[in-house]
Amino acid sequence: MPIVQAERLTRIGAALLKAAGASDEEADAVAVGCVNANLAGHDSHGVIAIPTYIDRIKAGHIVPGAPWTIVQESPTTTVIDGHWGFGFHVNAKAMALTVEKARTANVAACTVFRQSHVGRLAAYPLMAAKAGMIGIATADSGRSPKHVAPFGGREARLGTNPISIAVPSDLEAPFYLDMATSAVAAGKIALAISRNEEIPKGWTVDSDGRHTTDPKAYRKGGALLPLGGSEGYKGSGLAAMVEVLCGLLTGLGFEAPAGLPSQAGPC
Amino acid sequence: MPIVQAERLTRIGAALLKAAGASDEEADAVAVGCVNANLAGHDSHGVIAIPTYIDRIKAGHIVPGAPWTIVQESPTTTVIDGHWGFGFHVNAKAMALTVEKARTANVAACTVFRQSHVGRLAAYPLMAAKAGMIGIATADSGRSPKHVAPFGGREARLGTNPISIAVPSDLEAPFYLDMATSAVAAGKIALAISRNEEIPKGWTVDSDGRHTTDPKAYRKGGALLPLGGSEGYKGSGLAAMVEVLCGLLTGLGFEAPAGLPSQAGPC
Repeated sequence: MPIVQAERLTRIGAALLKAAGASDEEADAVAVGCVNANLAGHDSHGVIAIPTYIDRIKAGHIVPGAPWTIVQESPTTTVIDGHWGFGFHVNAKAMALTVEKARTANVAACTVFRQSHVGRLAAYPLMAAKAGMIGIATADSGRSPKHVAPFGGREARLGTNPISIAVPSDLEAPFYLDMATSAVAAGKIALAISRNEEIPKGWTVDSDGRHTTDPKAYRKGGALLPLGGSEGYKGSGLAAMVEVLCGLLTGLGFEAPAGLPSQAGPC
Repeated sequence: MPIVQAERLTRIGAALLKAAGASDEEADAVAVGCVNANLAGHDSHGVIAIPTYIDRIKAGHIVPGAPWTIVQESPTTTVIDGHWGFGFHVNAKAMALTVEKARTANVAACTVFRQSHVGRLAAYPLMAAKAGMIGIATADSGRSPKHVAPFGGREARLGTNPISIAVPSDLEAPFYLDMATSAVAAGKIALAISRNEEIPKGWTVDSDGRHTTDPKAYRKGGALLPLGGSEGYKGSGLAAMVEVLCGLLTGLGFEAPAGLPSQAGPC
């Protein structure tokens, strides 16, 4: 396997995205975000995602150069329409504004709708932590197809709906949590397929609702399982609350026909 | 088993608490809260806890008639010292104030320190939901002994650190989440002991760190396991963040010698 240094990998990623239509600023935000995920050990959210993003640009599900609009706001709150721009870029701007509001008001909250994949969710709470604040973000899968079977269910009805919390710390590395409310993130299955590895029992069910260790069964009508194993009702419950915060609260709604762009909102 | 109607059970509970030194207002808050937990199906947080509360009053760990002091506040935030009063009473007052602040500021947050057990955590976010708001609360076990072994560990180092979220809804029943970040709440083990039942594998380890289905092993140096089974690092991570929000953010700190009163703070 060739070894590529982070800086060079970032430049390659950015060049590919620019060739697909992204602006310099957008391409850099996405490429840096992806490589940061690789550097954090989350290969599932790293450069492996860039070809998918390029496919989504071609399909019109990611809109390079999309406007970024504040739909509603108060000194503590903001509702942002991302117009299907790059989530990396849209969400970072949303969090930067929220940090500014919290600086004055002590607490601030924000929802974002109509943006594409935000990548590694921790990137945004970590912006708050860097500013000396506690940051909490959740993200749903918006109008994308769902991937997680509710507890006891067989068909995917929920997103992987991650939660991330970052806190200021004087430790050498940042102190944060970044977890899917499913047993694992969907990217971990993609990674196992690309590495030709089996997955542990408890991560997925096949299209008949049976537990399986074959990662490929997931793409043949299978589903991820919620966090918790025999207490998976807790993972399902967390996922449902993320849908409320990101899907219902933003006004975009919960679930929709497959094939539409994805959406994710920090709360 | 005798059947006692909710109203009569509430009066019995309140009478016991008053005899132990609680004021009318405190006794009613605790008894109603406990019976509400029973009615919601959470017997672990129901009247089974009243004898423990009475023991704690005798030991000085719950202080009837304790003052309720605002230590620091802004239009969006409040830090409250509960002076080891009844958590049911202290926390309800804290949430009522936070709801009032959110009515003006759109978002508000509050921490409470030095209060005793708050009972069923959902009671407080449900106050927000009733007021048409989304309520989120977390609670740690403060300076009480810890009950949960971190993922891969053998000794209890974390609290059961619950998270509760309630949202306004036009459904007949309220829509909310109320879950320990451990596989189960400690009260579920007490309940299994009182009912002479086995517990499922994955809830606890014994004092040697071995998985066990004997609920009594938990009280002989065992520990609860974090939520998640083989992905228990997620439950551990959630629990750690609750410690930050309730223990560190309130200034009371994380863990302390056993035998001290408990504390819990909504965030």
